[in-house]
Amino acid sequence: MTSADIPARGPDEGWAGEPGLLTPVWTGSAVEGATGDVAVLQAMLDAEAALARAQATLGMVPASAAEAIGAAADVRLYDVRDIAVRAVPGGNPAIPLVADLTAAVARRAPEAAPYVHLGATSQDIVDTALMLVAARALPLIAADLGRAAAVLARLAAEHRDTVLPARTLTQHAVPTTFGLKAAGWRALILDATDRLSRLTLPAQLGGAAGTLAAFHEYAGSRPAAEGPDVGVALLRTFAAETGLAEPPLPWHVLRTPVADLGAALAFTAGALGKTAADVLVLTRTEIGELSEGAGGGSSAMPHKSNPVRATLMAAAARQAPALAAVLLGSLAAEDERPAGAWHAEWPALRELLRLAGGAAANAAELAEGLRVHPGRMRADLDRTGGLLLAERLAAALTPALGRAAARAAVERASRRAAADGVGLDEALRDERLPIVEDELRRLLDPATYVGSAPALTERALRRQPQVKE
Amino acid sequence: MTSADIPARGPDEGWAGEPGLLTPVWTGSAVEGATGDVAVLQAMLDAEAALARAQATLGMVPASAAEAIGAAADVRLYDVRDIAVRAVPGGNPAIPLVADLTAAVARRAPEAAPYVHLGATSQDIVDTALMLVAARALPLIAADLGRAAAVLARLAAEHRDTVLPARTLTQHAVPTTFGLKAAGWRALILDATDRLSRLTLPAQLGGAAGTLAAFHEYAGSRPAAEGPDVGVALLRTFAAETGLAEPPLPWHVLRTPVADLGAALAFTAGALGKTAADVLVLTRTEIGELSEGAGGGSSAMPHKSNPVRATLMAAAARQAPALAAVLLGSLAAEDERPAGAWHAEWPALRELLRLAGGAAANAAELAEGLRVHPGRMRADLDRTGGLLLAERLAAALTPALGRAAARAAVERASRRAAADGVGLDEALRDERLPIVEDELRRLLDPATYVGSAPALTERALRRQPQVKE
Amino acid sequence: MTSADIPARGPDEGWAGEPGLLTPVWTGSAVEGATGDVAVLQAMLDAEAALARAQATLGMVPASAAEAIGAAADVRLYDVRDIAVRAVPGGNPAIPLVADLTAAVARRAPEAAPYVHLGATSQDIVDTALMLVAARALPLIAADLGRAAAVLARLAAEHRDTVLPARTLTQHAVPTTFGLKAAGWRALILDATDRLSRLTLPAQLGGAAGTLAAFHEYAGSRPAAEGPDVGVALLRTFAAETGLAEPPLPWHVLRTPVADLGAALAFTAGALGKTAADVLVLTRTEIGELSEGAGGGSSAMPHKSNPVRATLMAAAARQAPALAAVLLGSLAAEDERPAGAWHAEWPALRELLRLAGGAAANAAELAEGLRVHPGRMRADLDRTGGLLLAERLAAALTPALGRAAARAAVERASRRAAADGVGLDEALRDERLPIVEDELRRLLDPATYVGSAPALTERALRRQPQVKE
Amino acid sequence: MTSADIPARGPDEGWAGEPGLLTPVWTGSAVEGATGDVAVLQAMLDAEAALARAQATLGMVPASAAEAIGAAADVRLYDVRDIAVRAVPGGNPAIPLVADLTAAVARRAPEAAPYVHLGATSQDIVDTALMLVAARALPLIAADLGRAAAVLARLAAEHRDTVLPARTLTQHAVPTTFGLKAAGWRALILDATDRLSRLTLPAQLGGAAGTLAAFHEYAGSRPAAEGPDVGVALLRTFAAETGLAEPPLPWHVLRTPVADLGAALAFTAGALGKTAADVLVLTRTEIGELSEGAGGGSSAMPHKSNPVRATLMAAAARQAPALAAVLLGSLAAEDERPAGAWHAEWPALRELLRLAGGAAANAAELAEGLRVHPGRMRADLDRTGGLLLAERLAAALTPALGRAAARAAVERASRRAAADGVGLDEALRDERLPIVEDELRRLLDPATYVGSAPALTERALRRQPQVKE
Repeated sequence: MTSADIPARGPDEGWAGEPGLLTPVWTGSAVEGATGDVAVLQAMLDAEAALARAQATLGMVPASAAEAIGAAADVRLYDVRDIAVRAVPGGNPAIPLVADLTAAVARRAPEAAPYVHLGATSQDIVDTALMLVAARALPLIAADLGRAAAVLARLAAEHRDTVLPARTLTQHAVPTTFGLKAAGWRALILDATDRLSRLTLPAQLGGAAGTLAAFHEYAGSRPAAEGPDVGVALLRTFAAETGLAEPPLPWHVLRTPVADLGAALAFTAGALGKTAADVLVLTRTEIGELSEGAGGGSSAMPHKSNPVRATLMAAAARQAPALAAVLLGSLAAEDERPAGAWHAEWPALRELLRLAGGAAANAAELAEGLRVHPGRMRADLDRTGGLLLAERLAAALTPALGRAAARAAVERASRRAAADGVGLDEALRDERLPIVEDELRRLLDPATYVGSAPALTERALRRQPQVKE
Repeated sequence: MTSADIPARGPDEGWAGEPGLLTPVWTGSAVEGATGDVAVLQAMLDAEAALARAQATLGMVPASAAEAIGAAADVRLYDVRDIAVRAVPGGNPAIPLVADLTAAVARRAPEAAPYVHLGATSQDIVDTALMLVAARALPLIAADLGRAAAVLARLAAEHRDTVLPARTLTQHAVPTTFGLKAAGWRALILDATDRLSRLTLPAQLGGAAGTLAAFHEYAGSRPAAEGPDVGVALLRTFAAETGLAEPPLPWHVLRTPVADLGAALAFTAGALGKTAADVLVLTRTEIGELSEGAGGGSSAMPHKSNPVRATLMAAAARQAPALAAVLLGSLAAEDERPAGAWHAEWPALRELLRLAGGAAANAAELAEGLRVHPGRMRADLDRTGGLLLAERLAAALTPALGRAAARAAVERASRRAAADGVGLDEALRDERLPIVEDELRRLLDPATYVGSAPALTERALRRQPQVKE
Repeated sequence: MTSADIPARGPDEGWAGEPGLLTPVWTGSAVEGATGDVAVLQAMLDAEAALARAQATLGMVPASAAEAIGAAADVRLYDVRDIAVRAVPGGNPAIPLVADLTAAVARRAPEAAPYVHLGATSQDIVDTALMLVAARALPLIAADLGRAAAVLARLAAEHRDTVLPARTLTQHAVPTTFGLKAAGWRALILDATDRLSRLTLPAQLGGAAGTLAAFHEYAGSRPAAEGPDVGVALLRTFAAETGLAEPPLPWHVLRTPVADLGAALAFTAGALGKTAADVLVLTRTEIGELSEGAGGGSSAMPHKSNPVRATLMAAAARQAPALAAVLLGSLAAEDERPAGAWHAEWPALRELLRLAGGAAANAAELAEGLRVHPGRMRADLDRTGGLLLAERLAAALTPALGRAAARAAVERASRRAAADGVGLDEALRDERLPIVEDELRRLLDPATYVGSAPALTERALRRQPQVKE
Repeated sequence: MTSADIPARGPDEGWAGEPGLLTPVWTGSAVEGATGDVAVLQAMLDAEAALARAQATLGMVPASAAEAIGAAADVRLYDVRDIAVRAVPGGNPAIPLVADLTAAVARRAPEAAPYVHLGATSQDIVDTALMLVAARALPLIAADLGRAAAVLARLAAEHRDTVLPARTLTQHAVPTTFGLKAAGWRALILDATDRLSRLTLPAQLGGAAGTLAAFHEYAGSRPAAEGPDVGVALLRTFAAETGLAEPPLPWHVLRTPVADLGAALAFTAGALGKTAADVLVLTRTEIGELSEGAGGGSSAMPHKSNPVRATLMAAAARQAPALAAVLLGSLAAEDERPAGAWHAEWPALRELLRLAGGAAANAAELAEGLRVHPGRMRADLDRTGGLLLAERLAAALTPALGRAAARAAVERASRRAAADGVGLDEALRDERLPIVEDELRRLLDPATYVGSAPALTERALRRQPQVKE
């Protein structure tokens, strides 16, 4: 029996779409709906309606036609799957949508039908729609980032002085504070928020090849007094009607907006990946300094409490850079519409919105449920019997012994402490160092060796996310 | 009015999945259905049923229970979206599926319910299911590759002697044949077919952490005579029941099968990308040596006949390497189940199957409809007035003049031909070279300067795809 | 005889480094030297010297010691290869460098030696050095971008009205202008310049694990009046001494600066990739609308003039996104120093600086030497016998015929023109359209169908690169 | 003072190459030398010499000329940096090398000079040279993989029964053995070895554009009896002379060999990344079940013993997939020589050889020095007071209680054990389960719950790496 003998069993009654079985990172999240095919198709319809309104404003199209087009620009009137399948021959979904929109308009207002998509090209609609989708998804992502940042600010303040081991290359290094860790996570999240909020999402309108030439034809009878260039005027009006930014040039092959989105979204997923990476370390069974509020269960092991939110955030951080690379690669787009680079952007951009949004939703949930265990942190500090104060001891002994001798003495004692399983204090006493017992005790208290951690935490908490005015 | 004022309009009545609006590369293709969530869920159910059958064979589970589980392993009984959403808390779809499968079995045969998923872990089911999905999708991809290769073999044979300019760094170089080009495209497609057919797709079974320990508990009463290790026996029987290969070890964190799939699928998309890249050059308006049978229309320009199939293949080739990088990156998976690397594989692996499958379907269609224009090829050869025979002339003159002088003479003539817009023959005559007119005419005939192209074409056509026995 | 029999022949007398044989994109460019190992090592020394100066300012280190350290911070005193090899055991170059710097200081001023690298960690030095290297390389990149942009501005102005075919999906679409193309290339280059100039390059100082704790020890005797936190004060002073920005927090595991650099540099390479992609099309033998001033020769074909600068720019654009993905991936860095993510950044960041810099240098040279052939552009416009005016004709006929009938008439005529090899004008006349001959002639003149191209060109040329104050 | 004020200090006396300061992954390794520019240039010279020998064999070139060319094919006669810089105008290093080689031959045997590079193109030389470099580097990589695999085989056998916690999603799951872990690492290394050994590394010879046409000219006087096609004969002879495989077709634009190398090398780095990921977990201070024999020191913390080898292997695994993506992307190469895709391969391919080789060298060293601490493993097993036997207990209780009740009882006890800090045994006793004390003790002994781990380890150790015959 081979796998070939086992037929794939498909759905019975018509195709049902992808319910998101393989994408727990974002399935069921707000950003899923905002970026789905229905949302994309609605955004394409919004773009068509905005174009008609803008053209009506400039006298290219009767106001009644624009109204009729607007009335037909409702995704509920269309069969998304049918349009998706009919998009294949021409390679983009605007072609069948324009046909169906024209038909829908014709049914209600036949005289308005010729004004559908007037002078536009597929790319005008698809690009504008994807920017609309991004414009609608980004606030959802930002909201979840804001939720996460707010909780982390509280945690950082609460744990300003909670000491735990800093770890470098997996080894205990010196003490640090959980406040500083949380402040650092928040700082990256604010960095992500700033990068997302700084994005410019422009409408796209260029006509067949970016010259807006057809619009000049349709504006033939328009009085010249209305402005120096009818194409530029339409671009401006169209952008205003969509609610998107006015681009300096049609950007059909100047893909700055898409590349910027890719970089900012991958940054976001990566920034959240830092929190995830730390949580995955600190929730390890042997460490247990943190736990996720509602760890995931296991189908095999009833006792387990898995850091599922952090796991999904880590999964997002592994996928996003590759997708951003696709978008950055599409900057190198030949001609006035590239054969492939443009088409490669669509799924990558949507998936990036979803990964960043899903990661942000997971981060907010993670932060809100995070349980901090200062006792475990303290216990971990004590595991190495003072070894992570070695740097400090070497510093303290330097004035008396010179740097090299101080360091050598501490290394000797450290090695013996590790080998004999005794505390560093005991090993140091055997070194007969010029240091009084009280001072030694103080030097070996990790809580007093956190340097600027509290000050840095406070400084970091004074930062607010930049809001785009 | 800002974009924030425009609400996203979602679907009215329940979530409808992703109909594939942004993925014309594979929307509507055979591989789409074979890799969809419904197919994945069915494959997960197939894995559960195969496990129960294997356990029945080894006496761990009553045969009637295995039958009851098999009867319930029908995707039509389940709500895929509901399972997808309930997968989020635990981070994988096996958890809710096991619950629903257990309930479905309990409804019909309550005594069988405890035997569902007995001793298995989520990863056993998800990994096995993804291999089943791959095993079902790969023959579809191979079939389309086979279709494309067959047509290209015919084209290569037909055009064994059809001459066109070879182009290097965008410039005409020397003549070549379309037969050799088509034979080269086919060779890459056979390379892809070989790499896909060489893949080993194993079942995965390891239990909670790869030791198969729980199965030992459930096999407690089993006579030892049946073999030295019950876990290994179950692994073998399970693999046979799924129709997949038996792995040497449980591979929950030895991700060779997934990494290999990633590399072979990206290779496939890339190999087809070569054909696409060439077709996109040769269908350019100025070149027109090829045309796609059914070029795509344009929403703005009625006269255009776009190379849409090649465009979508090129788009696939731009996306696939990045996704393969995600899979290769997931080889570095810590512990007995990594927190993120595993989850990152799922959408990347499915998308790669779809991109390779979609590209292959487009390639088959492209090849079948491809129109070859030998007249345009010939006209393009003549455009440079013999310049692309310069190499040959230099070679022919070398015995008489020495290599440097021969080359210099040809360069001089070439430059003058280009500058003055005369033919290279005329410019060469002015060089008063030791070459008779007839010989010059022969040397300047591109059709006689294709070297081994026909021989190589024949040699390439003798190759057959390796078929896995 | 197998390849194993052929021994690799290595250099005779000691290791000689990588002279750049495989990287013509940047070999010999200004950015090569600015980012080489010698420059990196000098930057590491600069960081050590700046630290000592900063510590002297704050009274942690005698001024004379800082001076002695500064005097020894000259790369000419060190054996870079020896340090590189000795970096392997500890995994980073700061360890052997600190040893050698300490020895060099000890030779001249033994009392200063203990103050070398006081309280710092390897990462402080490596991160600060890489930011210094970036700070020194970015102006070189910006200068070449500026050169390219300046020439393109001139070309765009000169060719504001030079008409050529716009191409979409490889097919002639409608006319556009070379001015608008060049203005678009420039716009992307200005986008890249803005993104590079917007980068913040901070110094890094955190001590062993980001708390700056050791510096508190060494500042023991310092009067508290100097400020609220000695670590923060040192961070500020150190940043000022390096000339880099002061970071809000030590960023040893908050990798925003590196991720931002990665995104901006890949953007730059991609933006230049657009120019390259267009030049590679327009210099094709069949098109010839542009040529590179000094095309590269060929070892086999004396007559060729290859677009080598565009080729190398295209090569850079293919490599950069993958490297940026590595840097974006390193955001997910566990602990206070990650085991791998940090080390993966170094070569990727340097290579990105070189690719962006090399691409920019090639772009400047390309722009400066670019030859524009308006005659070939015009000839290409005429190739399709008016077909690329079809959109316009359909628009012009719409008032009289209605949109559908107008479009159908033009499609019919277009198809017949293509099939019969006659001009579109002739085919249209046979359609007996309601259009007078003069109007038809005007409508079929591509030079009068460039829409807003001139206005957009002028608008684009008014933009100046943002300069960071 | 800004960074712009600080001049970059460069080297004093001429350019010194890259000594490898930023690449401790491979600096100083065997593969570094085998892949350096000197080795590449030597391989290019080897290709030229092999071509001349092959042509002499076929009577195209005098034997004495082939000898003279062979004598000049010694890298010590050339200035690599000078060639690298002179490669920039034409975009590839073959152009200046051919000039210098011709000059070198001319100095000794002027009559032989015209036979240098006869009929070949740059790509023939560069591609063949890179395959020679790969052919020389791969055995070095394989040797280090073999060293690592041998040690891991010994460790796996020694620790067949050494029990430690299996960890899934960072949490203790059930027991496993270190033998199985080491056997798994070895299995991935053998997978990598197989993939590397399966590669076909062909010579490349196609002439100007893959038709071998020029060779037909030069073979003009050759008796036809020698074979049906002189180009094919030369290709075969040339391949034999290089020691590389004979390709079915010239592969100048059929980049299977390069894409396959990319995938296999990234697989190798990823496979080693699995070992690294595990070592990085198990050497954590809190876990300490493993330690690297010679951990790296720290410039700031004298007591630290960092897992540096694993860190560098992890760094390699993070970089390699992105570089493989570049190579897979270059499959989509237009024309008979692509403008960019080919050039992008060179540095990516070399860096992949180095990353895989460096990672393999680090792995061998890591394995050879690895210290295993069974006592720490046992202690970690005991940390959760029996919780990681919960799955087993649920299984054992299932016959008596039914699956759901059994699982519920264990979950209740597990939760209470965790909450009250008591052992699971005590908590279970309070559940008054139908289980005798002796049986409970046996069930709670992790050493008896490793399932098939020993059997799987033995099975895995029976596997030998496939050797290419």
